[in-house]
Amino acid sequence: MDKIFETVPNFSEGRDQGTINAILDAFRNRSGVKLIDHEADPDHNRCVVTAVGEAAPLKEAVLAAVGTAVRRIDLRLHKGQHPRMGAVDVIPFIPLRKATMEETILLSRQVARAIAEAYQVPVFLYEESASRPDRKNLADIRKGEFEGMTAKLKLAEWKPDFGATAPHPSAGVVAVGARMPLVAFNVNLSTANPEIASAIAKAVRHQSGGLRYCKAIGVDLKARGIVQVSMNMTDFTRTPLHRVVELIRAEARRYGVSVVGSEIVGMVPMAALVDAAAYYMGLERFSIEQVLEQRLSE
Amino acid sequence: MDKIFETVPNFSEGRDQGTINAILDAFRNRSGVKLIDHEADPDHNRCVVTAVGEAAPLKEAVLAAVGTAVRRIDLRLHKGQHPRMGAVDVIPFIPLRKATMEETILLSRQVARAIAEAYQVPVFLYEESASRPDRKNLADIRKGEFEGMTAKLKLAEWKPDFGATAPHPSAGVVAVGARMPLVAFNVNLSTANPEIASAIAKAVRHQSGGLRYCKAIGVDLKARGIVQVSMNMTDFTRTPLHRVVELIRAEARRYGVSVVGSEIVGMVPMAALVDAAAYYMGLERFSIEQVLEQRLSE
Repeated sequence: MDKIFETVPNFSEGRDQGTINAILDAFRNRSGVKLIDHEADPDHNRCVVTAVGEAAPLKEAVLAAVGTAVRRIDLRLHKGQHPRMGAVDVIPFIPLRKATMEETILLSRQVARAIAEAYQVPVFLYEESASRPDRKNLADIRKGEFEGMTAKLKLAEWKPDFGATAPHPSAGVVAVGARMPLVAFNVNLSTANPEIASAIAKAVRHQSGGLRYCKAIGVDLKARGIVQVSMNMTDFTRTPLHRVVELIRAEARRYGVSVVGSEIVGMVPMAALVDAAAYYMGLERFSIEQVLEQRLSE
Repeated sequence: MDKIFETVPNFSEGRDQGTINAILDAFRNRSGVKLIDHEADPDHNRCVVTAVGEAAPLKEAVLAAVGTAVRRIDLRLHKGQHPRMGAVDVIPFIPLRKATMEETILLSRQVARAIAEAYQVPVFLYEESASRPDRKNLADIRKGEFEGMTAKLKLAEWKPDFGATAPHPSAGVVAVGARMPLVAFNVNLSTANPEIASAIAKAVRHQSGGLRYCKAIGVDLKARGIVQVSMNMTDFTRTPLHRVVELIRAEARRYGVSVVGSEIVGMVPMAALVDAAAYYMGLERFSIEQVLEQRLSE
């Protein structure tokens, strides 16, 4: 198999099963693409799809899904708890196997251009693909949501990267970009005191002085009588999982608290776990090419 | 992809590149089979092939390779340092992805029967496939080597599992069986004293009272001024890597010695490393299905 990319597009439909299925069909039975997961939330009125594949067929699948969403979702009638600015709200691409970030950015830009041309939906490039620093953050782009996009796109600083300076009447706008894989990683502590979880979360997260690619909050696991540091690791190749585990362990010590466990929510790239094994066992000169499964799908 | 098996057949030719290539060709460009590795040693006069694939095509590949070896290798003219009893000396099958040991044993028996029928080479089943306990150990079957097989096969207790009671005139006999994946795993110690490595190897290996699926010897790494416990982990699903690392660490403590690193030689199944990561980070409720790459080749 060639270089592999992941995409996690978010569609603004979490209730109509016919529309959700039509979107998923774009990723099904397509050679070179694999639909890994999908999660539709009626309260958010949003569906999150996870698919992996080679660049060309993955691009085709995403474009087909966007076409379906533009045809079937009307944002003028859309209500839901999650903020949104388009029928397809955001399309991140992620380098997976043998793919570089540069190649992922290129793929995201090709998809962005094709969406604007094929469906007349204006596109903002975000994260690693952003054309300017103030467009890196998705929340800044989405501010004002669907209802505010007509006014926003008239502003010079919010001219879309591709497409017209007015939103699509029913499908709004979409953000397309490249980012590293996210790992949702939680570490559990031997205390019921939520203040300790919050203090440790503050110590380890980037925002308040901690690790560069770590977002963290404290969470109370009342049913288990313990607390948790709940994290998004935004680049495990630079801030590996073992580092945050050991930092939490060290910070917990001042409260007389121990790490009692951890969990990975959802999917995780193999390399994140192989790196942890290599760290804890002190593996020397180890290459991911020594992992049999790495060869299986080559 | 369906259930995946590995095979590591050993051929008694490590010098003639034409014969080696002809054997490798049996595994190349065959749908459902992947040639992972091969290593030809002129001193041993032996070639070890590693291939993975689905049961049916892997069986076809092995049979084709055996046919080539029987045609091209004449044990009457064969000299080498490694003990051998046949043109194809031994063919282990290993359960890899989604395959059980029972299915692997079945595959090994099908291949064994087909070899005897197609090429008139008698076959002994060994390891997990063995028909009797005294045939589990390959060394016991191979004792006497090619030159001793004519006499050995006449003995009632050495009647082959498949084929005639006389070896093939030029290709001898072959052992076919099923076993768990081997992990060649070494742990390095902060001392130059080889007696400490030997004592710790003795403490952790099965033979002398240690862990059930661990073979170990002490090795002197003179160039680095340290020593090593060099191991074959014969079933990492039952004796996981982390357990032997932590046991070596504990045993080393009595000599005031630390573990300074480790290494995996050759290939390792992903699950062996994922298990280690899960142990050291205390992962709760983790499933290998959460690993993205696990889904890629499904």
